[in-house]
Amino acid sequence: MTRPIIILVEPQLAENIGMVARAMANFGLSELRLVSPRNGWPKKGAHSAASGATHVLEGARLYDTVREAIADLNFVFATTARERGQMKRVFAPDDAMKEAQQRLGSGQGVGILFGRERTGLENDEVSLADAIITFPVDPKFSSLNLAQAVLLVSYEWYKLATGGALPFEGGRHSPPAPREMVTSFFDYIEAELDAVNFYPEDKKPTMTRNMRDIFHRLEMTEQEVRTLRGAIRALAEGRRLRKP
Amino acid sequence: MTRPIIILVEPQLAENIGMVARAMANFGLSELRLVSPRNGWPKKGAHSAASGATHVLEGARLYDTVREAIADLNFVFATTARERGQMKRVFAPDDAMKEAQQRLGSGQGVGILFGRERTGLENDEVSLADAIITFPVDPKFSSLNLAQAVLLVSYEWYKLATGGALPFEGGRHSPPAPREMVTSFFDYIEAELDAVNFYPEDKKPTMTRNMRDIFHRLEMTEQEVRTLRGAIRALAEGRRLRKP
Repeated sequence: MTRPIIILVEPQLAENIGMVARAMANFGLSELRLVSPRNGWPKKGAHSAASGATHVLEGARLYDTVREAIADLNFVFATTARERGQMKRVFAPDDAMKEAQQRLGSGQGVGILFGRERTGLENDEVSLADAIITFPVDPKFSSLNLAQAVLLVSYEWYKLATGGALPFEGGRHSPPAPREMVTSFFDYIEAELDAVNFYPEDKKPTMTRNMRDIFHRLEMTEQEVRTLRGAIRALAEGRRLRKP
Repeated sequence: MTRPIIILVEPQLAENIGMVARAMANFGLSELRLVSPRNGWPKKGAHSAASGATHVLEGARLYDTVREAIADLNFVFATTARERGQMKRVFAPDDAMKEAQQRLGSGQGVGILFGRERTGLENDEVSLADAIITFPVDPKFSSLNLAQAVLLVSYEWYKLATGGALPFEGGRHSPPAPREMVTSFFDYIEAELDAVNFYPEDKKPTMTRNMRDIFHRLEMTEQEVRTLRGAIRALAEGRRLRKP
């Protein structure tokens, strides 16, 4: 057990279980436990909602009670949307996953309990947990869908476990062009603009600096300098060609 | 416009639009724009999936094209799951919302584009955006549901905007009990254990220290000291009563 285990307590809708499986798979979790699903298990509807995360559904283990579902674990979080008057530490999802990662790193099994779609966990079930996770939601609209709640915890887990690595990096494949290439590009533009009397008398120094600032801000690559230079040449030559 | 605007491009399923509205409402967002929903709008199924977030659905504005939907905004993110070969900055949801917050703070309108359920945004649509958001998903299972993608961005926004405030705080309502109360509790336990010859010869000092450590770790409140002391008294007196 090197990752948190997701435990759904009496989930009602097969679609929700499927969407939970999908959310888990999105963020590298795979161990799902189901405590007395309301309408039996396996149940059709779950697979299509899982959208390919069948390995999670097929590996799901069934339990009759929360107590049995957490028996082999060393630390258990209960997710709740409201205060339960229990003397437990309350974590946001990100801090909870830091705690989980530390414990998992020392070989502990960590589980997270999610309650029924409408009514959540019962107080006695929360009471079986070591700590609480709640979500930083708008108090005016605090009801999170079951799969959304699992998603947020899974997302925070994966962000932490992978150091926030993204599937691809930012767009700059080439380094900024050598300064000489950029300076020569400026010379070229300025000469073409001079040729069409673009600069009003005595404003040329300021206007030149302003325009250079615009292009500097772009941090153009070699390819981009060539593209822009080509576009300007086309404009300048098109104008010459159109001349009678 | 003090919050990011969510823009769905050609969403197909009314249920997804409803779940997007719910996810937005969970995290304090309310401005939704729809670009050419595939099956018309309004469409039944959206309201029940919105689970009460009707203000978001009813305030949704319709546009024919992405260009029109972003016309009044100052900065636009495009969400994509894969590299598009475009020279744009790529943000994770949390960093993107930091950028959004700065811009919103200076009076800019900020929008976030989400593509079609199956095919996402077209390259030309991504090209209209200033920067890209992508999600730190497991590359082996990277397909996020539309509402889940909106949820993650909204969650990161709200976390940042509220400083991560949770709907309720941790469970310790009372401070730890005064030390004298705890020390006297230890005296009481140790006397009762002595009375039943609990301690083997010469092990008493070590066992006492170990047991004190266990109770110290609890950081008991006054109420908790009273509860435990009562439980121990009941055990001790029950034993005396059972005696012939």
